[in-house]
Amino acid sequence: MTDHYNVAIMGSTGAVGQVLLELLDERDFPLNELRLLASARSAGKTVPFQGKALTVQELKEDSFDGIDIVLASAGGSVSQQYAPFAVQAGAVVIDNTSAFRMDPEVPLVVPEVNADDLLAHRGIIANPNCSTIVMVMAVWPLYRHCRVKRIVVSTYQAISGAGARAMEELEAQTREVLAGHPAVPKEIPHQVAFNLFSHNSDIGADGYCTEEKKMVLETRKMFHDEDIQITATCVRVPVMRAHSESINLEFESPLAESDARRILSQALGVEIVDDREANHFPMPLEASGKDNVLVGRIRQDISRPDGTGIDLFLSGDQLRKGAALNAIQIAEVLIAKDCVRVAV
Amino acid sequence: MTDHYNVAIMGSTGAVGQVLLELLDERDFPLNELRLLASARSAGKTVPFQGKALTVQELKEDSFDGIDIVLASAGGSVSQQYAPFAVQAGAVVIDNTSAFRMDPEVPLVVPEVNADDLLAHRGIIANPNCSTIVMVMAVWPLYRHCRVKRIVVSTYQAISGAGARAMEELEAQTREVLAGHPAVPKEIPHQVAFNLFSHNSDIGADGYCTEEKKMVLETRKMFHDEDIQITATCVRVPVMRAHSESINLEFESPLAESDARRILSQALGVEIVDDREANHFPMPLEASGKDNVLVGRIRQDISRPDGTGIDLFLSGDQLRKGAALNAIQIAEVLIAKDCVRVAV
Repeated sequence: MTDHYNVAIMGSTGAVGQVLLELLDERDFPLNELRLLASARSAGKTVPFQGKALTVQELKEDSFDGIDIVLASAGGSVSQQYAPFAVQAGAVVIDNTSAFRMDPEVPLVVPEVNADDLLAHRGIIANPNCSTIVMVMAVWPLYRHCRVKRIVVSTYQAISGAGARAMEELEAQTREVLAGHPAVPKEIPHQVAFNLFSHNSDIGADGYCTEEKKMVLETRKMFHDEDIQITATCVRVPVMRAHSESINLEFESPLAESDARRILSQALGVEIVDDREANHFPMPLEASGKDNVLVGRIRQDISRPDGTGIDLFLSGDQLRKGAALNAIQIAEVLIAKDCVRVAV
Repeated sequence: MTDHYNVAIMGSTGAVGQVLLELLDERDFPLNELRLLASARSAGKTVPFQGKALTVQELKEDSFDGIDIVLASAGGSVSQQYAPFAVQAGAVVIDNTSAFRMDPEVPLVVPEVNADDLLAHRGIIANPNCSTIVMVMAVWPLYRHCRVKRIVVSTYQAISGAGARAMEELEAQTREVLAGHPAVPKEIPHQVAFNLFSHNSDIGADGYCTEEKKMVLETRKMFHDEDIQITATCVRVPVMRAHSESINLEFESPLAESDARRILSQALGVEIVDDREANHFPMPLEASGKDNVLVGRIRQDISRPDGTGIDLFLSGDQLRKGAALNAIQIAEVLIAKDCVRVAV
């Protein structure tokens, strides 16, 4: 096997799994075999891919024979349980769950930020949390130019982050509410139709929820900067698919708005949407289905008269760059750098 | 006339006007006459109030004879044009538009913050912008205890802020989108169903929109503190009625989370909704129709290890405390302090 790879997807029927399939096709990924793995419940289902019907196989300890790359997005406990078997079988696992992200032996990577960290992988590579990914896409290019000391971020997170069933629930619940019926939350803990709520992950003793702590800790790990200070407030909004974030940055020294704009306009994976005249800025609807993170509202923070502050607003597709696309880009870098562990 | 007042409403058929009528009834406001004034287009319509049908009269220069209190919410240019005639006729105008807010001779008041400023009124009193009002309800009690140096706020603003027609549009547009039809924005400049966008007020040379500048300038005026630094990012979300805000506060000296919580739990007009166990925090749906601003997610800002930061999240009814309720509370204070200019 030289330049085509055997890829397995764990969790191919979920929201991220669906986009992984779309992207493998769209990007002409050098595939040899594509193996879809899922729980016994989903085994036997067929999934269309490039004109063929692929049959989902039951995920087992010996499912990884001959596999080069595993794209895992079936939940943290599934990754915990099966990733070691995949690694033993010689595959590299690109894990989209939180299972290994803070493991010091596991690289946590957004290719535009820290692709070099991939070189040290020992079989497992972690894909960061979606809200962290879209944030660092805008913050890292600026950070490289002028160190960011502190970030204050508030998120406007789409319901896609809670999975495919939650997306269906937003739609169904909205129909109910419009029909004058009460909303009955199922997957999602609160009414989301015409409402919003604080991100429903567990709250720690410090009052931060897990989602917020991910944004703090994952950013520090990827930036290799334990001193960058970050506070985050994560909020779910009745939007289907792309996450938005309001980001306030405090720099070590003054950074002019014009420099910030120039740097971001040259950044890979970033598209500037910042038309003040037309009042046209990043919107989740326009970010949905796009690979690039849309960045706008770029302005000097008037609350820092010394010029050390920049405000911006972004929208990025949570399922693409926030999850599936980043995982596939990691695989592409591994291939380009020739550091996929090829089986046998 | 001793303890009952002749009240005129300019703009009684709008979203705020409707809530003004609700509140005058609900709060048993000491009414003698209630006169509804509107443009020629709306004149002749009848509006139900306390079991009677009030006929809307055309707003003219001589509409204010015998009126003690004018509640104005028919738009800035209407207030500009007619408020002077109301004052000449001996009435006090409580203006819900932006027309006079930054006029140094006009008190800008949230009664819980700066009721004493009312004493100096010369006939016109300005009601602050909705997003400013709900913010200062949480910030002022803390500020009084320990000066706030800097505020970073991101808003999640309901569509009610754009008026009654915009609320209808959110509903109609959502139905269209659910039916698979494209959204056709009318009142609102972008699709709002399952989307969000940067607040569509004019953007200044500094990149801030008018709504954001209001939050900065109005807060400084009410706090009598030109040095408080504020940066705001204002965003419209597909929520019907209450505004939410993610607020990061930087204090002059350390403030413990427990003190912040105690101070806010004692603050008038504030209700703490901060159940970490049940993941239950302020939501616009629960704030809608309520007089109190709901405040939660109160926590020490981990990005300020010296203890000088507090984060919080709030939801407040934009039409009640954010507009109509505040105006009526101003009238109630004027009555209690005996500084309504009584006609004749």
